Amino acid sequence: MDSPTKHAPWTLARRMELLGSSREVTEILKLAERPDVISLAGGLPDPAVFPLERIRESQERVLREEGASALNYGPNAGYTRLREWIAERMEARERVSVGVENILVTSGGIEALNLVSIAVLDPGDTVLVEAPTYLAALHVFRSQEARIASVATDALGLVPEALREKVKDLAKAGVRPRFLYVIPSFQNPSGATWSRERRREVVEICDEASIGIVEDHAYAELCYEKEREPSLKSLAPGNVVFLHTFSKIFAPGARLGWAAADPDLIESLGLAKLGTDQCANTLTQRLVYDYGRHGYIEDQVKSSIELYRRKRDRMEAAMRRHFPPETKWVHPLGGFFVWVALPRGIDTEALLPLAIEREKTAFVAGPAFFADRSGKNFMRLSFSFVPEERIEEAIERLARAIRTLQS
Amino acid sequence: MDSPTKHAPWTLARRMELLGSSREVTEILKLAERPDVISLAGGLPDPAVFPLERIRESQERVLREEGASALNYGPNAGYTRLREWIAERMEARERVSVGVENILVTSGGIEALNLVSIAVLDPGDTVLVEAPTYLAALHVFRSQEARIASVATDALGLVPEALREKVKDLAKAGVRPRFLYVIPSFQNPSGATWSRERRREVVEICDEASIGIVEDHAYAELCYEKEREPSLKSLAPGNVVFLHTFSKIFAPGARLGWAAADPDLIESLGLAKLGTDQCANTLTQRLVYDYGRHGYIEDQVKSSIELYRRKRDRMEAAMRRHFPPETKWVHPLGGFFVWVALPRGIDTEALLPLAIEREKTAFVAGPAFFADRSGKNFMRLSFSFVPEERIEEAIERLARAIRTLQS
Repeated sequence: MDSPTKHAPWTLARRMELLGSSREVTEILKLAERPDVISLAGGLPDPAVFPLERIRESQERVLREEGASALNYGPNAGYTRLREWIAERMEARERVSVGVENILVTSGGIEALNLVSIAVLDPGDTVLVEAPTYLAALHVFRSQEARIASVATDALGLVPEALREKVKDLAKAGVRPRFLYVIPSFQNPSGATWSRERRREVVEICDEASIGIVEDHAYAELCYEKEREPSLKSLAPGNVVFLHTFSKIFAPGARLGWAAADPDLIESLGLAKLGTDQCANTLTQRLVYDYGRHGYIEDQVKSSIELYRRKRDRMEAAMRRHFPPETKWVHPLGGFFVWVALPRGIDTEALLPLAIEREKTAFVAGPAFFADRSGKNFMRLSFSFVPEERIEEAIERLARAIRTLQS
Repeated sequence: MDSPTKHAPWTLARRMELLGSSREVTEILKLAERPDVISLAGGLPDPAVFPLERIRESQERVLREEGASALNYGPNAGYTRLREWIAERMEARERVSVGVENILVTSGGIEALNLVSIAVLDPGDTVLVEAPTYLAALHVFRSQEARIASVATDALGLVPEALREKVKDLAKAGVRPRFLYVIPSFQNPSGATWSRERRREVVEICDEASIGIVEDHAYAELCYEKEREPSLKSLAPGNVVFLHTFSKIFAPGARLGWAAADPDLIESLGLAKLGTDQCANTLTQRLVYDYGRHGYIEDQVKSSIELYRRKRDRMEAAMRRHFPPETKWVHPLGGFFVWVALPRGIDTEALLPLAIEREKTAFVAGPAFFADRSGKNFMRLSFSFVPEERIEEAIERLARAIRTLQS
């Protein structure tokens, strides 16, 4: 069956229709890059967290010590020393037992999720996600023509009872979901952090129903409180594929992340990777390894936490001052985002053009984060990238746009 | 339908079975990395071509001048200045009219091909390829569960009559191939270069049948003769998606390449890229741009050509001296490979373990490059990576292994 297309003889694959909504989001992110716009849209790190001098030092050392081998193709599963370093760091930080054979280096966190999807999903398969969830994850699952089944969340994370019900309903229809994709700490977009109790329950439910879990750890190290909750991987090592990225603990420009899983599955992900980019960037893999083993990542995480905690506090204070009193949000204990429930009746997709054109302030409207495009009165505000001294102004502007829409 | 698996609850997607043969090749490439083995297996550049001092200089300039913006997320389609530079260079070198809107920067050439496949191929769709062809291309098409239809080639490239026949046969069966994937210059693995006449004919046949062409330009700049043949893109601009990589004109470790196509299709490839890695490596994109605009790529291509021409000549001379007289190959006018037809009856898949274990010398056996795993008496020898002074020795060793098998 041919679908119509504008570039004969190039007809597009079916999946491309499912990806249309991502196009909107890219447009918004492009708008948000206009120099006259304050953007709370993208989940970008604050440029101030990159210690340029240390990065320069590592870059030079890599080229001096590794020379040409840093510039050629590297092993499909990643630079071995980096994989070893990642495994050791995970053992120490996440209290899971992993070795080099459990680690695959990927071109960012999103590639890790894409590789899992290539290896595991056939068209028509069902994936369970939180509602709301990371919009690029929805994009990846749609690329595989997967069915997306959403499970309700609240301030304490995924609602176990809702998961149990959803699994039961799907089983009645003869469907066993391929896996559950979740972000248990400082969720994107909701900012919510699952309680320990919830983590245990979800792990149990999935174990019972033989449903794999894909745990996205992207923001988990940026914790603004004293105690971190345990990763799902540490609670159910065999059942959880753990994904992490260097984008928030080093730099997104390096495009590096990793998957941690059983060796069999790691081998399958590597096989899938032969068809995406064969191996991750050799030069930046060595850079990150050098930077990491000098303890610079730990330093960077520490200073990032201080900066982002301050920015979060500043944004919440401004929201309390300027937003309508009925506005609600979960106080984010870490990460980059505040997920704002505006008073019912306010459509954030209608608010957005107003905010950009009249108030020169951007955010991402709620529906992008729901497979069914619900969440109309929600918006995601990122406090990570906006200059600290412009946070109050940005919130004031948004408040003004909201009032315009209300009146 | 669940397929059986070793890592319950993780069941693998159907496509993973199709990818099994790639696993073999990875194993061979791993064996070839053993320090006691001379490898003619992988298509890696000679480490001597990387001018470390100039790369160091560009790295430092990028960090100094671009600072933090080189470390954050970049635009989905690529760093704008790099795209502009690529377009200008293509206009000058390939005599095609392209602008920034025609260029998408990818994470290597293989990602470019993967993005085209994501955007265009539904499971069960048919792709036309040369027999033999690039093995990673077969992997990409299998990842999409495409059907692969092979077209015969000879020393002058794809055989137009064979293409015409194949298209006719498919049409009778109600199948319109989605595109034809080809490497017209210094083909991988065959080393063949299409004649100008063949280029014109193939472009015409595809135009008539409304079949798109994906032209892989990976080796085309490494031309060891005076005159280059025109790219298919220059002969049929609207119908050809042109793929190129920085791996052979700069460094594979940077994992960068590009696609050149009509803006509509470029937009679709960008949309597909949101689900692979969102954007190519920001840091190395700026590095390549800086390195390129200083004219260093042109210098590197020039000195690479001299080095590889010498290595090719040395390998062919050794082959003439040591291989059985019935051995045949096409004299490669460029690129990295000699594609050797051994006397009938010699099975290169049987030869390979013998060559590795007894003679400590590796290559890739022919069947990996054919969708139907034919080509049993062929082997691909790469002269690019092996140290120049070990070429003769490597060929002697292979000749010894061949004699062992013959006796």
